[in-house]
Amino acid sequence: MTRDTPARSTFILTLDCPNRPGIVAGISTRLFELGANIADAQQYDDTGQDRFFMRVVFDIAAADGLAGRLEAEIGALAAQFAMRWTLSDTARPARVLLLVSKFDHCLVDLLYRWRIGELAIAPVGIVSNHPRTLHADVDFHGIPFHHLPVTPQTRAAQEEEIWQLVQSTGTELVVLARYMQILSDGLARKLAGRCINIHHSFLPGFKGARPYHQAFERGVKLIGATAHYVTGDLDEGPIIEQDVERISHADTPEDLIRKGRDIERRVLARAVRIHVERRALPNGRKTVVFGH
Amino acid sequence: MTRDTPARSTFILTLDCPNRPGIVAGISTRLFELGANIADAQQYDDTGQDRFFMRVVFDIAAADGLAGRLEAEIGALAAQFAMRWTLSDTARPARVLLLVSKFDHCLVDLLYRWRIGELAIAPVGIVSNHPRTLHADVDFHGIPFHHLPVTPQTRAAQEEEIWQLVQSTGTELVVLARYMQILSDGLARKLAGRCINIHHSFLPGFKGARPYHQAFERGVKLIGATAHYVTGDLDEGPIIEQDVERISHADTPEDLIRKGRDIERRVLARAVRIHVERRALPNGRKTVVFGH
Amino acid sequence: MTRDTPARSTFILTLDCPNRPGIVAGISTRLFELGANIADAQQYDDTGQDRFFMRVVFDIAAADGLAGRLEAEIGALAAQFAMRWTLSDTARPARVLLLVSKFDHCLVDLLYRWRIGELAIAPVGIVSNHPRTLHADVDFHGIPFHHLPVTPQTRAAQEEEIWQLVQSTGTELVVLARYMQILSDGLARKLAGRCINIHHSFLPGFKGARPYHQAFERGVKLIGATAHYVTGDLDEGPIIEQDVERISHADTPEDLIRKGRDIERRVLARAVRIHVERRALPNGRKTVVFGH
Amino acid sequence: MTRDTPARSTFILTLDCPNRPGIVAGISTRLFELGANIADAQQYDDTGQDRFFMRVVFDIAAADGLAGRLEAEIGALAAQFAMRWTLSDTARPARVLLLVSKFDHCLVDLLYRWRIGELAIAPVGIVSNHPRTLHADVDFHGIPFHHLPVTPQTRAAQEEEIWQLVQSTGTELVVLARYMQILSDGLARKLAGRCINIHHSFLPGFKGARPYHQAFERGVKLIGATAHYVTGDLDEGPIIEQDVERISHADTPEDLIRKGRDIERRVLARAVRIHVERRALPNGRKTVVFGH
Repeated sequence: MTRDTPARSTFILTLDCPNRPGIVAGISTRLFELGANIADAQQYDDTGQDRFFMRVVFDIAAADGLAGRLEAEIGALAAQFAMRWTLSDTARPARVLLLVSKFDHCLVDLLYRWRIGELAIAPVGIVSNHPRTLHADVDFHGIPFHHLPVTPQTRAAQEEEIWQLVQSTGTELVVLARYMQILSDGLARKLAGRCINIHHSFLPGFKGARPYHQAFERGVKLIGATAHYVTGDLDEGPIIEQDVERISHADTPEDLIRKGRDIERRVLARAVRIHVERRALPNGRKTVVFGH
Repeated sequence: MTRDTPARSTFILTLDCPNRPGIVAGISTRLFELGANIADAQQYDDTGQDRFFMRVVFDIAAADGLAGRLEAEIGALAAQFAMRWTLSDTARPARVLLLVSKFDHCLVDLLYRWRIGELAIAPVGIVSNHPRTLHADVDFHGIPFHHLPVTPQTRAAQEEEIWQLVQSTGTELVVLARYMQILSDGLARKLAGRCINIHHSFLPGFKGARPYHQAFERGVKLIGATAHYVTGDLDEGPIIEQDVERISHADTPEDLIRKGRDIERRVLARAVRIHVERRALPNGRKTVVFGH
Repeated sequence: MTRDTPARSTFILTLDCPNRPGIVAGISTRLFELGANIADAQQYDDTGQDRFFMRVVFDIAAADGLAGRLEAEIGALAAQFAMRWTLSDTARPARVLLLVSKFDHCLVDLLYRWRIGELAIAPVGIVSNHPRTLHADVDFHGIPFHHLPVTPQTRAAQEEEIWQLVQSTGTELVVLARYMQILSDGLARKLAGRCINIHHSFLPGFKGARPYHQAFERGVKLIGATAHYVTGDLDEGPIIEQDVERISHADTPEDLIRKGRDIERRVLARAVRIHVERRALPNGRKTVVFGH
Repeated sequence: MTRDTPARSTFILTLDCPNRPGIVAGISTRLFELGANIADAQQYDDTGQDRFFMRVVFDIAAADGLAGRLEAEIGALAAQFAMRWTLSDTARPARVLLLVSKFDHCLVDLLYRWRIGELAIAPVGIVSNHPRTLHADVDFHGIPFHHLPVTPQTRAAQEEEIWQLVQSTGTELVVLARYMQILSDGLARKLAGRCINIHHSFLPGFKGARPYHQAFERGVKLIGATAHYVTGDLDEGPIIEQDVERISHADTPEDLIRKGRDIERRVLARAVRIHVERRALPNGRKTVVFGH
């Protein structure tokens, strides 16, 4: 989608602002004046909220201090239109902290995609509330591991340790890769828009424990998974990606759990890709997800 | 799946009973002794409930009074194993009463499938709480139409009229083809296992009015529909079939409603087919659906 | 997606041209100067072909002679960038000629979607190589019907009649709704980019007659359908839309044909929608399809 | 699906034979006499070939020499009906030899599913035409590795080594997990019905090299993968499982390859599961796949 010549850099600009005439003209003219070439652009006009969303991929001659200069230029334009915006250099993979509990299917899947270069992430740490021995069979490829056990009594302290890790590692994205602890409102708020969770989903939905068993009892014909940004409201943050698979009466709860693993890992991997490619823009309780 | 020679009839036997050794041997031996050839058979052992479910398709030399003789034979065997059972002659289409309100996409779809011979149903009547003129554009192909308006005050009387129609027409299956009235517990109970409803489904689910608008507000990425047997508990009866379609942030509530129509009509048509082919066996709060 | 106020008109502009800097800036600035508000815009940079594609939806104050003035303005800009372009007023439905042979499932489906206002088309005629009586059960709702029988000997003359119809009715889109005649290279060329066909598709593909029977013999587990623009090369024109459904060994060829009907009608309806919403832009042997 | 009590064993019986009355009665009566309880049974009557297929899961009191006694009993019955049949003890995982070339996504996926106990296989060896160092990052968990390089000149000798490995390890299933060498007719015949391959699939299909690039050039909207039994006819053996994913014009050939990896690994894993659960019965050029 972008021109790969040695002397050019590729950036992704995302923005949203109150809708008014001239935004696209303003952005594209400024990028043109800066010598940038727009490789891809998508926009969405939320007419109900009267809010405008845009994602632009552009390449530009590489130079020392380029990112800083672009930030200054775009910042000036952004002020004019009251924009929220982000600018990412595609050459720099997102720094990701992975949290996991007992089940490792999502973790192993993300590590594989990272290892073969499929996912532009740089894992800066793996955190678990269980000791390293639980995942003794999984090669962490040198990624630092942090055993942070947690009890109701120690939750606040443990979350403070996670938050310190986020800061000390320069983490840009926290992925709850089947991390079975509920984040406090406080931590969820600090990580707003940069913490992704994965959970099972059903039609109809179920509250409470052992959802796959409930789905079995109810005789649903489809099971699914949802990846979403974490907010204080558990399992209810803005949705990034969902998928389902067909099941039958002959599937036992164990079969549902097995099929659920496949859905969970692919939905989470897609959501992480969507995030690091800056395709997901927060829009109140939901997201704008620019596809391709 | 079955041998079609002029002199043979094809029947579908469904049964369920407490599980114990010898059921399959008992059934298949008796059918063999009767000169029947098993064309298809599927079974399911619900180990949690210790209950056994079976669907057998067999053909047998056609003869006068055959159905009655088979019923007597199978009845004797059924008593021995404490079976619930049904026997259907595939040459006889199911007598179906169609109920509709304002939206006719499901009705039109079912009528088309019936007209081209795709669905083995014999529509015996169309009931609407709106007058015939509302669907003036739809050709009912001579199927009797009954305008049965309803208000909270007249609900009991209107439902009595529906029930009289069911009896006078020999209706075997009632299809709520987007019939937007909630059946009373009483009528739902009388029609238990032979009344199918279709409704939208989402992950997560939504309660209350205007569900497609709620789905839009919530930013879900999939919308779906569920066909189920009607019980006193609205939208919560045993599920027969479900399907979903992918949507995006750019879909308006109107787009969701449009896409929903496509899902609703194909899920309902599949559910009706499953029912008339005797593939759906009630199993408490859920169904056993034998696929193919 | 667009603002619906009485005094504004909504247009769709599509364009493609050799890629070079400044296209988006040029377009968006000109539209801004014209007082237009961009409601939706998508673009694609085919780096292999170095060609740029764009679709812009904009609204603008309604006025007499507006379309002509916009065409003049955009034409001037287009010349500058060597663009191919189209401009459509969304208030004006596309004039569509429907061709059908024996099977009417696609025709009936398109007519239904048109009748309930779901598809922005204006059917100007229905053509069949079979007499009206073959589809006696289908209500054409006053759309003129033309019986144009064809034999190898009369093909040229019959196609000339079709072409005359296209011209006399101002047809903008020809839909081959299971029209089982192969168009000549000559007619296909005249209708380039405005004639859509639907056909079954399989993995792997099959050549020759009775494809569903071949698929059955080969034991495929998925069947599908493809909608594409018609070119001289039968079934090989630029693809607009595809879909599949899962089947099993127990499906007879008749089951495959039945399931195929469902896939064909929904894929064709989606392709017609994509076309009339100007989402499909020809790109050599393929299409750019801007989704939503 | 089966009763797991310490003192009982569970077996899967598959069989196919010319269709004639009394097969089900014969099987089920004999199993009843042997004290077996049928937990699941499915059958299929291929009326075109007049051939009957059946899969029966039964449990029975565990005992020394049980398997041998069952084989003798069933063998006697089988002779009477001219059956081809297999009997598998579900407690014994299938011995699997995995062949891989450069791409390891299928291998890694299968090893993961084996490691967490999801797939009832016992890997007896990993063979590659590349050295162990190519997959240095992949933990083989002690499974013996065999580097068997191959050139056109050494193919016969290399295949003989593979065949020796199959025999010496008691391999029951060979999985070509993206093994990019074509097996000779001779080896394919020796492994008939116990060697599974995975390859990409498209609508329409493409012959020749770089298929994902061809799919990109052709502008297909779906890409897929097919798992099949290997025969002398490359990529044309009986199909076990297929799946597809939606793509768009904006997907580069690299995107297609990436998405293809996901489809390939899940289709191959499902096919291996189908095989080891004895759900796939060969039926000439195709398979009967009993689902659940």
